[in-house]
Amino acid sequence: MSRHSVGLIGGGQVARAHIVGFGNIPLFYGPLQTAEVKTVAEATDALASDAASRLGVPHWTSDWKQVVSDPAIEIIDVLTPTYLHKDPAIAAMEKGKAVICEKPLAATEADAREMYEVAKSRKATTLVGFNYRRVPAVTLAKEMIASGRIGRIQHVRSHFMEDWGGPNFPLTWRFQAEKAGAGALTDLGSHALDMVRYLVGEPTEVCGVAANFVPERVPSGGSKPLRSDVDDLTVAILRLDGGAVAEVSASWVSLGRKVQLDFEVQGTEGTLYFSMERPNELNFYSAGDPKTEQGFRQVYFGPSHKYGSSLLFSSATMGTGYVDSMTNQMRDFIDALEKGTECAPSFYDGWRVSRIISAILESSRNKSWVAL
Amino acid sequence: MSRHSVGLIGGGQVARAHIVGFGNIPLFYGPLQTAEVKTVAEATDALASDAASRLGVPHWTSDWKQVVSDPAIEIIDVLTPTYLHKDPAIAAMEKGKAVICEKPLAATEADAREMYEVAKSRKATTLVGFNYRRVPAVTLAKEMIASGRIGRIQHVRSHFMEDWGGPNFPLTWRFQAEKAGAGALTDLGSHALDMVRYLVGEPTEVCGVAANFVPERVPSGGSKPLRSDVDDLTVAILRLDGGAVAEVSASWVSLGRKVQLDFEVQGTEGTLYFSMERPNELNFYSAGDPKTEQGFRQVYFGPSHKYGSSLLFSSATMGTGYVDSMTNQMRDFIDALEKGTECAPSFYDGWRVSRIISAILESSRNKSWVAL
Amino acid sequence: MSRHSVGLIGGGQVARAHIVGFGNIPLFYGPLQTAEVKTVAEATDALASDAASRLGVPHWTSDWKQVVSDPAIEIIDVLTPTYLHKDPAIAAMEKGKAVICEKPLAATEADAREMYEVAKSRKATTLVGFNYRRVPAVTLAKEMIASGRIGRIQHVRSHFMEDWGGPNFPLTWRFQAEKAGAGALTDLGSHALDMVRYLVGEPTEVCGVAANFVPERVPSGGSKPLRSDVDDLTVAILRLDGGAVAEVSASWVSLGRKVQLDFEVQGTEGTLYFSMERPNELNFYSAGDPKTEQGFRQVYFGPSHKYGSSLLFSSATMGTGYVDSMTNQMRDFIDALEKGTECAPSFYDGWRVSRIISAILESSRNKSWVAL
Amino acid sequence: MSRHSVGLIGGGQVARAHIVGFGNIPLFYGPLQTAEVKTVAEATDALASDAASRLGVPHWTSDWKQVVSDPAIEIIDVLTPTYLHKDPAIAAMEKGKAVICEKPLAATEADAREMYEVAKSRKATTLVGFNYRRVPAVTLAKEMIASGRIGRIQHVRSHFMEDWGGPNFPLTWRFQAEKAGAGALTDLGSHALDMVRYLVGEPTEVCGVAANFVPERVPSGGSKPLRSDVDDLTVAILRLDGGAVAEVSASWVSLGRKVQLDFEVQGTEGTLYFSMERPNELNFYSAGDPKTEQGFRQVYFGPSHKYGSSLLFSSATMGTGYVDSMTNQMRDFIDALEKGTECAPSFYDGWRVSRIISAILESSRNKSWVAL
Repeated sequence: MSRHSVGLIGGGQVARAHIVGFGNIPLFYGPLQTAEVKTVAEATDALASDAASRLGVPHWTSDWKQVVSDPAIEIIDVLTPTYLHKDPAIAAMEKGKAVICEKPLAATEADAREMYEVAKSRKATTLVGFNYRRVPAVTLAKEMIASGRIGRIQHVRSHFMEDWGGPNFPLTWRFQAEKAGAGALTDLGSHALDMVRYLVGEPTEVCGVAANFVPERVPSGGSKPLRSDVDDLTVAILRLDGGAVAEVSASWVSLGRKVQLDFEVQGTEGTLYFSMERPNELNFYSAGDPKTEQGFRQVYFGPSHKYGSSLLFSSATMGTGYVDSMTNQMRDFIDALEKGTECAPSFYDGWRVSRIISAILESSRNKSWVAL
Repeated sequence: MSRHSVGLIGGGQVARAHIVGFGNIPLFYGPLQTAEVKTVAEATDALASDAASRLGVPHWTSDWKQVVSDPAIEIIDVLTPTYLHKDPAIAAMEKGKAVICEKPLAATEADAREMYEVAKSRKATTLVGFNYRRVPAVTLAKEMIASGRIGRIQHVRSHFMEDWGGPNFPLTWRFQAEKAGAGALTDLGSHALDMVRYLVGEPTEVCGVAANFVPERVPSGGSKPLRSDVDDLTVAILRLDGGAVAEVSASWVSLGRKVQLDFEVQGTEGTLYFSMERPNELNFYSAGDPKTEQGFRQVYFGPSHKYGSSLLFSSATMGTGYVDSMTNQMRDFIDALEKGTECAPSFYDGWRVSRIISAILESSRNKSWVAL
Repeated sequence: MSRHSVGLIGGGQVARAHIVGFGNIPLFYGPLQTAEVKTVAEATDALASDAASRLGVPHWTSDWKQVVSDPAIEIIDVLTPTYLHKDPAIAAMEKGKAVICEKPLAATEADAREMYEVAKSRKATTLVGFNYRRVPAVTLAKEMIASGRIGRIQHVRSHFMEDWGGPNFPLTWRFQAEKAGAGALTDLGSHALDMVRYLVGEPTEVCGVAANFVPERVPSGGSKPLRSDVDDLTVAILRLDGGAVAEVSASWVSLGRKVQLDFEVQGTEGTLYFSMERPNELNFYSAGDPKTEQGFRQVYFGPSHKYGSSLLFSSATMGTGYVDSMTNQMRDFIDALEKGTECAPSFYDGWRVSRIISAILESSRNKSWVAL
Repeated sequence: MSRHSVGLIGGGQVARAHIVGFGNIPLFYGPLQTAEVKTVAEATDALASDAASRLGVPHWTSDWKQVVSDPAIEIIDVLTPTYLHKDPAIAAMEKGKAVICEKPLAATEADAREMYEVAKSRKATTLVGFNYRRVPAVTLAKEMIASGRIGRIQHVRSHFMEDWGGPNFPLTWRFQAEKAGAGALTDLGSHALDMVRYLVGEPTEVCGVAANFVPERVPSGGSKPLRSDVDDLTVAILRLDGGAVAEVSASWVSLGRKVQLDFEVQGTEGTLYFSMERPNELNFYSAGDPKTEQGFRQVYFGPSHKYGSSLLFSSATMGTGYVDSMTNQMRDFIDALEKGTECAPSFYDGWRVSRIISAILESSRNKSWVAL
């Protein structure tokens, strides 16, 4: 039985998602591994104590450096606004901690690279929060592609479309390029880009359009509109190492799409399709099926798949999608930590995605292809 | 902040599902309410200590009467094989405990009725585990029907189809009528029957066919086939109070159907359709939509719906069907307990379903309609 | 190159569907076979001449006996209201004609049986209009079941749900039991019953509920409501020869369902699902697929399937459901006529379905099972 | 009652599709309008006489100039390989004929423009075969967008994916850039590009990647592989007049996709989604629906929609998709001819699409954006 202690840097909305992930490890997989969130840091005492009581965390502080230095804390989980990831993450690695950091890794490629370099030199166990890799149906897709089940990949699409970001959504740091890096492209598109890299491989050059449809937003509680200088929609074409062509897009103004992180991967032997709106299902077409019976198969996540031991019953799907993805992510991170093995997606992956984001933004500004 | 203590009677597969439900209350809804499982009773010391360590429960016993009598335990949760529900449930109510009991309430209608009578006379807070009522999309369906959104109901269908129960599945008490009451009809069909009652209303007469396709099964670890005397498939027609006609079926030999608890409710103003295989979606057809735009709407569970505060993000669906249903069920039970309000589905509902099951079996035996 | 001449008895709505079927034979399959509609009989001169001009038929008459006796006419196609099928169909067979008759074959089982007896004694080539058998995806289902691809059948469902028959739909002969035999059960349910027989086998006993929700309707152009004494919804359970259990229902008050003739056939090796609302698709689950890849396959009708030569392109589906079904039906009938082979569904099948309908109505009246 | 005479230039596979379109006008809409194909021209006598007998056309010739000059022919329908469209089309217009021409209009933008210029100067009634505009669900989408039902458009996607063009498909002129213009981009992508223009508006600049995955193919009956120098997959980003961003892709190596011409159009008030694989359905999300009931509606083509008079029954969908699209196209063309009104998509539209195709190819060659 192993117990791990976690300190949160940042106690906002996404903190609850992480708490859900940590808390469900023993519920889904039995009590042999637990990770307890011991403390939370926020910008002020008021925010920190509020976060602690909202989240059920026993301690709080307004000084993140305390958390990072606390010998009783093994894992630092960085959940601040993007532009504030770097300092605590690096400080934690320098103190020898294992570090989880929400995506995108940083607001600039330079910061992301610096974080990755420190991780590398310190041999830190790191994780960037591309949690969708661990939705069981996505993991299955990865296994099938890696085993050659759909042949050589020629075409990939991945989109992440949501619809909450219309003109009435209040201004926050997410709508300010300086703090967030970009808009829908970082918040959502980073997941889609990671999906392409995870499932197929690295892009070698990109071309994209980052479009702003909502140039001004009113801050919450405010009345005066301020500038919102990020993309509400970005679309991009990527040429991948190995010859495949990828299409990626991200939007938070895509009405009706609630959490449509989808992908379609087309190979010379078959095709896979997935959408997070139906997270239990992986659709698989095999050109090897008998001629008269060919068709996309709708494969439901089940006990014979990876992470299937999370299922309560021999048939029924118990968990699904987001909660599973967070739980499996935290559990695999702890496994890697215990065994001293590599954990992915690491800060390396976080940096690569930041690199691609930066190239897409440059491509959009200059109306040109950008090599990676 | 309220803390509740729970004692489990039975530590098998379904115990984990209940632990998941209790454990996720603070994760989904914040730490103001928690219910801690303190002890688990099983048939023998070996089974009990194994259950405790598998489930992460601090205490165990092979004497359920100890749990039922323990003044430190507020809630008794009965998870034994069906024919063993009655004794601990009644004993617990007599000790003044709040009692949760898995479905079906009992293996015979007589037992179910006795349990309900005790609950009534003791004014016990009770709950029978028809958890699917609290899948958010199902709750939404109920609200829409109750508000008249689809008019007067004329036709209802509910099925519960799974596919794990083929001839290779080993014999357990679930395949013995004496212990389980019936087969697919009690294990799965009880949920479908509760759905009809919950969404529309009580049946007044029933006619059904209970079919056994697998007359013998080999027990786990054994080699000699023994009699499996329960239905593998049951189909039934119900006439409902108010004039609607219902069709219900249940099967555990329905290949390809993993957790297809579905319903279609047709009224004079619209229709609702749901399947547990896509638990985030409620399909709604409104005859009131403009002529050229009529069609089933696929409504995703979201922040504006009941239980929507479980969602982590303004758009993304975090929770997911089974886990949500268990968590919401336990939370509502605790709310009722704290406030002294009615909780449904109670032992009354458990008894009504047992009454219908008993009538369907009689109908199948006698090839006749049976009035309720 | 073969040319056939057709005389229509009845020139209403369904006549156009048959004209579409005859007319598309050379369009879909090339000009080697054609069937030309030469004349149409209606109740009065005015109706007949109107039908001829609406339908583009060169001749008309108000005396169907003329058509039946015309030596230039080879095929008689009976499209009158149900209770008027028998006389022209029998007269035509007695004149040695090949006879097509719309479904249901007759308004009473006695009439249907008489028609079948004449067909048998005269060795007439006959066809009853259960056209959905020849939707290519349905034909594929039949072939797969017949070849044992899904094993021994245990459970069948077939429904036919539409939504045009609410209280505002005017009274016609279809709502009068004497003329139509029954309501939704004959108009729609006859197709579902034929589907069960075609795909799986004959029922041996039935139990059903025929429900009337709209007891009065106003005739078109009228103002006084008259009695509508037929079922708006019928549900039934059938025990089939061989042990399978079937559920059948039919409704014309099922809001949102436009042409939902669906079926699910569950066997010991797999399951098939089809809905006429997506007529190009057959869904197939095979228990023989690799464990981690099992799922329903959505098989699109294509060039490698029966009737695939109707497709214009190597991939694109050109035809589509209803039109295909009518065209294939008429073409197969003409093939049988040319080759002197059996054609199904014949008047035998029409009579069997009438027999089942009559048993379901009796079951509903008497609240009892009825043996067949 | 109007009768029109048609002469086909080209008698290959697509000729049958046009014959189906002409032939179904009276079958779907009644005999008031008919268009009879009187003659077919092919490259040689043998080919021409074979085409005539396959297609059921009474006359044939190996000299297309005869057809174009024949005063008995009103409509010339050009169905030759792409690079042979121009001469007969222009000759026909110069003789005052109405001209239908398959897509893409020509193999080069220059040819397409010349054809359009002649059409303009001669005021010819022309049509280019972008038939999918007249799939009823697509027409409905157009009407909804035009009426403002989904607000200002921000994002459009249209793909056309099929799977027949793998390495085993034999070399034909379609795989030779000189004759076909391009590969999947012209054969399939031209439809997707027309869809974007039709539904939303003109692109102002484009950037794309045209990828060849099958550089050699063996001609039918041959044994030596020859060069296949066209795109098997093309993806492109388009900036549209008015600010929307479009993504377009086309592939004939997309395994499992049979006729997936789809589009998603996202506006500030709603979203529309359509796929030709389910041609009867238009999916519509309205941000104006009540909060708790928002979701994509699956609208089935029905009697209240444009082209709904083609439906045989008040509810059932009779025709669907491809056949409807061809029939409606031919009928609207004849209507325009009779009334002297504009018909779209005309040669103007054909030229505009060729212009965009040419720009995408240039963009792919030069790795740059190309303005239109």
